[in-house]
Amino acid sequence: MNDVVDFININRDRYVDELKQYLAIPSISALPEHASDIRRAAQWTADALTAAGMHNVRLIETPGNPVVYGDWLNAPGKPTILFYGHYDVQPVDPLNLWTTPPFEADVRDGEIYARGSADDKGQVFMHIKAVEAHMKKAGHLPLNIKFFIEGEEEVGSVHLDEFVRTHKSELAADVVVISDSPMFDRGIPSICYGLRGLTYFQIDLRGSKSDLHSGSFGGAVANPAFVLAQILTQMKDKSGRIRIPGFYDDVRPLSEAERAEWRKLPFNETRYRKDLGAPRLFGETGYSTLERVWARPTFEVNGLLSGFTGEGAKTVLPAVAMAKVSMRLVPDQDPKKIGDLFEAYLNKLAPKTVELKVTRMHGGKPWMTEFDNKYVRAAGRAIEKGFGKAPVFNREGGSIPVVSTFQEELGLPSVLFGVGLPDENAHAPNEKLDLSNFHNGIIASAFLYEEIANLE
Amino acid sequence: MNDVVDFININRDRYVDELKQYLAIPSISALPEHASDIRRAAQWTADALTAAGMHNVRLIETPGNPVVYGDWLNAPGKPTILFYGHYDVQPVDPLNLWTTPPFEADVRDGEIYARGSADDKGQVFMHIKAVEAHMKKAGHLPLNIKFFIEGEEEVGSVHLDEFVRTHKSELAADVVVISDSPMFDRGIPSICYGLRGLTYFQIDLRGSKSDLHSGSFGGAVANPAFVLAQILTQMKDKSGRIRIPGFYDDVRPLSEAERAEWRKLPFNETRYRKDLGAPRLFGETGYSTLERVWARPTFEVNGLLSGFTGEGAKTVLPAVAMAKVSMRLVPDQDPKKIGDLFEAYLNKLAPKTVELKVTRMHGGKPWMTEFDNKYVRAAGRAIEKGFGKAPVFNREGGSIPVVSTFQEELGLPSVLFGVGLPDENAHAPNEKLDLSNFHNGIIASAFLYEEIANLE
Repeated sequence: MNDVVDFININRDRYVDELKQYLAIPSISALPEHASDIRRAAQWTADALTAAGMHNVRLIETPGNPVVYGDWLNAPGKPTILFYGHYDVQPVDPLNLWTTPPFEADVRDGEIYARGSADDKGQVFMHIKAVEAHMKKAGHLPLNIKFFIEGEEEVGSVHLDEFVRTHKSELAADVVVISDSPMFDRGIPSICYGLRGLTYFQIDLRGSKSDLHSGSFGGAVANPAFVLAQILTQMKDKSGRIRIPGFYDDVRPLSEAERAEWRKLPFNETRYRKDLGAPRLFGETGYSTLERVWARPTFEVNGLLSGFTGEGAKTVLPAVAMAKVSMRLVPDQDPKKIGDLFEAYLNKLAPKTVELKVTRMHGGKPWMTEFDNKYVRAAGRAIEKGFGKAPVFNREGGSIPVVSTFQEELGLPSVLFGVGLPDENAHAPNEKLDLSNFHNGIIASAFLYEEIANLE
Repeated sequence: MNDVVDFININRDRYVDELKQYLAIPSISALPEHASDIRRAAQWTADALTAAGMHNVRLIETPGNPVVYGDWLNAPGKPTILFYGHYDVQPVDPLNLWTTPPFEADVRDGEIYARGSADDKGQVFMHIKAVEAHMKKAGHLPLNIKFFIEGEEEVGSVHLDEFVRTHKSELAADVVVISDSPMFDRGIPSICYGLRGLTYFQIDLRGSKSDLHSGSFGGAVANPAFVLAQILTQMKDKSGRIRIPGFYDDVRPLSEAERAEWRKLPFNETRYRKDLGAPRLFGETGYSTLERVWARPTFEVNGLLSGFTGEGAKTVLPAVAMAKVSMRLVPDQDPKKIGDLFEAYLNKLAPKTVELKVTRMHGGKPWMTEFDNKYVRAAGRAIEKGFGKAPVFNREGGSIPVVSTFQEELGLPSVLFGVGLPDENAHAPNEKLDLSNFHNGIIASAFLYEEIANLE
C-alpha cells in the first residue's frame, strides 16, 4: 500500500486537472436542453474508468439517461464491491450568485468551486483515481469491483429501481460503497448510517382563464396566489409540526441511546447558524437541530411562482399560481403512502374557487442500517488511515433513494463514506469541494478496498 | 355637428390604421428597457395632437417620463376641458398567452387586439380624432381644451401629483374629462362616478445567505417561501375580510339607496363568471359581486417568486421569497395611512427567523363624485347621441389616482366616460378594444365638447 499511497501523493495535481475537465460538462439532468451534456458526461466517466484499467466499460441505456458501467473481477474468492455514484448535477440558477462560472472549475483557498464538485463528480472521481492507483502500482486490485454510475440522481433516479431489478446478476456483490454525502464537519470524517427519503410534488392552481386587472376584478374572484398561500400554511403548524393527517404514523421514534450519542458530537449550533447566514434556526419543537435534520420528516416549499415577478409594480390578479413542495421522510415512512396522504389532504384543503392540479414528481424511501456491521468497521479503519482520524457515525438529512433499492432488491448493505463538507453548497450557488478532503478521500478509498479484501 | 359626424363616419378605416401605428410602440413604463419606446410614444402622441390642429404641443419633462401637452384656447367665454389620458402601457407577460403579438395590432371580429388598445391609447386617440373632426369641418372647437397625456399611469403616476401642483395655472380648466375606464357592459354605455384607490408593496424575505439543500438542511431553518405563505394567509380571513388592524376604520359604508340602484343594473353573474373562466366567484361575505368590486377594499397577491420554478424538480430550500401585494381602497381610506397600517401589521407578523424587507411601490386615493352635476349630465347626453342609448351610472374597481389630485389640487370635477368593455383584458394577455365602441366613442366625444360648450 505504500507504493499506492506514494503514487496518489505524487499525482495530486494531475487529479485536480482531470477533475476540472469532468466538472466542465454541464450535465444538468433536470433540464432537457442539457441532454447532450448528459451523454458527454456519461462518456467522459466511461473513458476515465477505461483509463483506470477497468474492464467491460460501457454505457447501458435506460428509458432516461444512460448508466455507466465498468468492472474488475479478477480477484476470485475476494469480496465484490458495487460502487454507486452519479454523473449528473443540479441546475445552477440563480446564476448571478456564483462567484465564478459553475462549469469553469476554479481553485480558491484549497477548495475547487464548480457545480458537481462535491455532488457527486468529485467523489466519483476519487474512487476512479483510487482504483487507478492500485492498478498502476500493483497491476491489480485487492478485491473485485463494479462501478455503477447513473445520470438521474438529481431528478429522483426515476429509472433506477427498474434497472436494478432487471440487472440483478450483473450488479451482484457483497457490499455497496457510496460517496455522495458530506462528512460531519471539517476535520471530522464520518460514516453515514441513515438517510431521509423524499416525495416531491408540483401544485398548480388556476383561478381564471387569464390574468385579470386587480382593480376591475379584485374582490370578485379568488386569487390563486392567495389560495396557494392558504393551502401551504395549513401544511404545518406554528411549532413546525406537519398537519397532514396520518403523516407521523410510521415515523420511528428516536431512541434515547441515539439521541445521547448525537449530543456527544462536536456540533456548534452558533457556527452552523452563521455558516447558513440564517437570522435564527427554526424547526420542530422538542428536537435538537441534528435530530430535526437527520431523524425528523419535513415539509418544504421548494419553489413559488405566480403573477408578476419582474421589476416594478403590475396590478395583476394572477390566473395561476404554482408551488413545488417536497417532504423529507424518515424510517419507516413510505413515500408512496405519504404522497397519497398529502394528495388527499391537498384535495380536501383546495377550495372550489380554484382548479387544482397535482403532479407527483419523484420519491425515494428513507434508509437506515446498523453501524457495527463488518463493512462499516472496515470503512472506519480505512478512513482513519486516509484522514489520520477515526470517523464519527452520523445520519444524513438528504436522500439517496437507491440505497433502499440495493437493500431491498439485491440484499446488500451500503457503506456511505462521503468527503464533502456541510457547507459545500450542494444544490446551491458556489458548490465546492475541499481539495485536501478529495486527496485524503482517494487514499482512504484505496485503503477501503484493502480493508474489505482482508475481511474474513 | 352633422358635418363633423359625417367626417368621423367617412374616416373610420383611417382611424384604425393610425391607431395601429400608435399601438405598435411598446411603451411599457414598468420596464426600464423600454425607456426609448416611452419617448417614441410620447412623440407620436404629440405629433397626433399637432396633426389634429392643437396648439402649443410639446413634451414637458418630469423626473420620470415626459408629459405630452397640447391645447386649443380660441373660444373665449366658453368652458375649458382638461383632457387626461396616458400613453404608457402595462407589461405583456406571459407573452405565450397572446394569440397575436401584443405590439402588432390585429383586428378580429370587430375588435382590435393589442396592448394599450383599451388601456389607454385607443381611448386617448378617440379624443384626438374627435377634436380633429371639429377642426377639419368647422375650423374651430366649440370650447377650449387642454390635452394632458402622461407616461407613468401604469407605474402609479409617481411624478404626477408634483407636476399638477407645479403647473396649476397651465392646467387651469372647468372640468376634467377622462376616458380610461370600461363601460358597464357591451351595449350599455356608462359614466363612472367612483374609483378605488391603491397601495402597492413588495415583500422580500430572506432565510439564509444562499439557497440550501433541502435534504441536508431541511428542518433546521425557516423556509422563507413557507413563512411568506404564513404571512400572506394572515392578511385575510376565510370570509375574505382583511385582518390588518384598523383597515376598515375609514371605509364609507354603502348606502342602501346606492345598493338598490346597483341591484337594478343588468348584471348577469353567471355570464360574468364564465367570461372570467373562474370555477366560482368568491369575495367578502355580505356583499354582492358589484359591491365587492366597486365599493369594498381588497388585499391581493399580484406576484410570487421563490426558489426553483423551472421544469422538473429541484430539492432546494430557498434563501429568499418575494411577493408583490396590493390593496384596492375605497372612500374614505387614505393610501398613506393604510400603507402604514399594513407595514406595522407585516412587521408584527414576520417571525425573527427571516429578514423582512418591505418596499412601498405606489399608491393612489379613492375617488367619488355626485353624479348629478352638470358636466356629468352633459356627458350623459353626448353618450346618448354617440351610442343611441342613455348611459347607466356606475363605480369602477380600478384606480385613476390623478382624479383625486385634480379634485384636491385644481378643484376640478371629473367626468369619466370610458368605452372599453369589462372583458377587454386590460393588464392581461389579448387586450382588445371593440371598434364600434371606439367609433361611437369618437362621435360621443365630439358631442361632449358641444354639450359642455352649451352649458350656461
